[in-house]
Amino acid sequence: MENRESEQLQLLSEAESGLRLQRVRRAMADRALDAVLISDNANIYYLTGRVFCGFIFIPADGEPLYAVRRPCHLKGRRTVAIHKVEELPPMAGLPHGATLGLEMGTSSYNAIARIQKAFGDSLKFADASPVMAAARSVKTDAEIEQIRISGVRQTALYHRIPRLFQPGMRDIDLQVEIERAARLEGCLGQFRVSGDDMELFMGNVLVGDNADSPSPYDFAMGGAGMDPSLPVGADGTLITRGVSVMVDVNGNFTGYMTDMTRCYSIDSVLPRRALDAHRLSIDICAALADMGRPGVEARALYEKALSMATEAGFANEFMGHRQHAGFVGHGVGIEINELPVLAPRSKSILETGNVIAIEPKFVIPGVGALGIENTYVVRPEGAMQCLTLAPQEITCFE
Amino acid sequence: MENRESEQLQLLSEAESGLRLQRVRRAMADRALDAVLISDNANIYYLTGRVFCGFIFIPADGEPLYAVRRPCHLKGRRTVAIHKVEELPPMAGLPHGATLGLEMGTSSYNAIARIQKAFGDSLKFADASPVMAAARSVKTDAEIEQIRISGVRQTALYHRIPRLFQPGMRDIDLQVEIERAARLEGCLGQFRVSGDDMELFMGNVLVGDNADSPSPYDFAMGGAGMDPSLPVGADGTLITRGVSVMVDVNGNFTGYMTDMTRCYSIDSVLPRRALDAHRLSIDICAALADMGRPGVEARALYEKALSMATEAGFANEFMGHRQHAGFVGHGVGIEINELPVLAPRSKSILETGNVIAIEPKFVIPGVGALGIENTYVVRPEGAMQCLTLAPQEITCFE
Repeated sequence: MENRESEQLQLLSEAESGLRLQRVRRAMADRALDAVLISDNANIYYLTGRVFCGFIFIPADGEPLYAVRRPCHLKGRRTVAIHKVEELPPMAGLPHGATLGLEMGTSSYNAIARIQKAFGDSLKFADASPVMAAARSVKTDAEIEQIRISGVRQTALYHRIPRLFQPGMRDIDLQVEIERAARLEGCLGQFRVSGDDMELFMGNVLVGDNADSPSPYDFAMGGAGMDPSLPVGADGTLITRGVSVMVDVNGNFTGYMTDMTRCYSIDSVLPRRALDAHRLSIDICAALADMGRPGVEARALYEKALSMATEAGFANEFMGHRQHAGFVGHGVGIEINELPVLAPRSKSILETGNVIAIEPKFVIPGVGALGIENTYVVRPEGAMQCLTLAPQEITCFE
Repeated sequence: MENRESEQLQLLSEAESGLRLQRVRRAMADRALDAVLISDNANIYYLTGRVFCGFIFIPADGEPLYAVRRPCHLKGRRTVAIHKVEELPPMAGLPHGATLGLEMGTSSYNAIARIQKAFGDSLKFADASPVMAAARSVKTDAEIEQIRISGVRQTALYHRIPRLFQPGMRDIDLQVEIERAARLEGCLGQFRVSGDDMELFMGNVLVGDNADSPSPYDFAMGGAGMDPSLPVGADGTLITRGVSVMVDVNGNFTGYMTDMTRCYSIDSVLPRRALDAHRLSIDICAALADMGRPGVEARALYEKALSMATEAGFANEFMGHRQHAGFVGHGVGIEINELPVLAPRSKSILETGNVIAIEPKFVIPGVGALGIENTYVVRPEGAMQCLTLAPQEITCFE
């Protein structure tokens, strides 16, 4: 049976909830918003520590209002049950001419239009998606703790991977065993991505030249997938000697994710160029982790990675070969694609509390994908700290 | 390496592609749209048999245009590579005053606003989401064949479930083994749902009173989940004698899903009222399958189910107990929540080729969830045909 505690809507401590609200309000002030109305699952989780169906109305001053459609049993301060968004405007009580921020980057056009109609012409509307993205890009200590826990569990999972391999396995066979091991380790499964266009099940196992199959999705690496309805990742390639096995699986163990990639091979028979690419990836990660301090431009990290790859003669294979990804890292937290993005045109400046996955990867034709990915936290002083501590070298299955 | 065939964008036969376009155009004509612009993954898959990142422009007359952002290697008739939506209007060549349908139900507000700006004020814009939903609600024979294959594989999976149980398991332990068995059977994993608010990993295993935990999601049954970041399904309840084990896991084996639920228990020791509820569910399914013919109102099936539940004295437990779902069935295909919906206010009329999951479920406090779910296809004559043929009775684990 439900216990009383779980009927309380707000699962964050008052201090933690206050801290997150403060970040949201600072970002609201930057954009001159008088209030925001939140309904995206990831943002609701950020603000309350749980997912519910409904809305959180956050005025620039005063307490938020929690309007719940489902589940039916949640209670708490300033918590009301509603059936539809049309009930909100009288409760919100916004003055004529006020600017209300809505999640225009994630909510459907129809959902936003319905909210606008409900609140009427007396308000101005603006995009609240950048407000929430900015707030969430700088993690609190409590959030970093959740990410740290995911990192520990994901690392334990990766330690088990060499023992999951059996000769004769295809990529998908290994992937299924990794998925099971992840779930037994406590992985929640669900892979939260911002934006409908991105789809991925529990992560990717890329073997050999399948890594060079261009994918529709904006992930670092592709793969043809098992079926054209989900064209990403494992495609049934047999795991043989001389090809690389790149494993990049879901690190969502707490509601906050880490992102880690490691490479494996049968025996240690990969060609020199593949080994060099992998070593280069480790070196790029180390260089970027050292550079990554508060005040540094996100794009400077991308440029550093690209210049190291180019100087080493790997420009054509950097972040893909037939198709190239346009970034070398991305923020990670509740969702896999948060701010900052390490990309040429990023305007982000690194801040203490950013959590960033760095993934300098290479595709060597005839061998496959090489390189690593680690999740780092930006600290007030010194280099970024790595939260994904599995051994970085290519690990042999046998 | 990629083979040539997979570089062809259009994976459907010309006849099949023509049939689907015809359905879309009929729905466009009903709403007086001069063209639609499609970018949703599920709709792109419907129209081409594959997912790509980009747009399909469908004029009322003339050939569609396929504008691809990713992957980079697709070729075919009327297929062009683009970088951004702003390149589309000159290619589309719509006359002044034409009405362009956009996917306002699934695309974000910002995405739609950007498209509107690109096409400019000379056009009128309308919602294309109902067009695509209407077209997709009536499956072609080729689509039904894909659904049938999923049904056969999902049935094979369900036959294996009793052997996956081990004494001492919690709900989540059994779920992980079912997930693995499903993946080994060929399940693609990804669970496509329309709408960002709906989240579910690979399905639900609901044991005992956890079935009575209200969830934020609009599924038939709830469950507290393992973590407040994903509050649905298994919550760690031990599987003991005297409680029901309801299994409702992902039947996506082909890009087209079936939806099936079955119940299990240790020994055959469930209370009379639970057994009666389960029998009632089987009877409701049979009655609705018999009623379900072209021309019948979807809401009539809901009313029939509700009246059977009420007459049998199960109104309070029908479709939940602490929280009730407002439907008894739903269309299924590429996504789990298609048209028609069997609900009190549905305006759908059943048509030949509708594929509908019917799930009259009950929550009996102290025992758990009872009932079944089957996926049916509406045929030109006679009762609906069931595509999920695992035994319907409660199966004993031991």
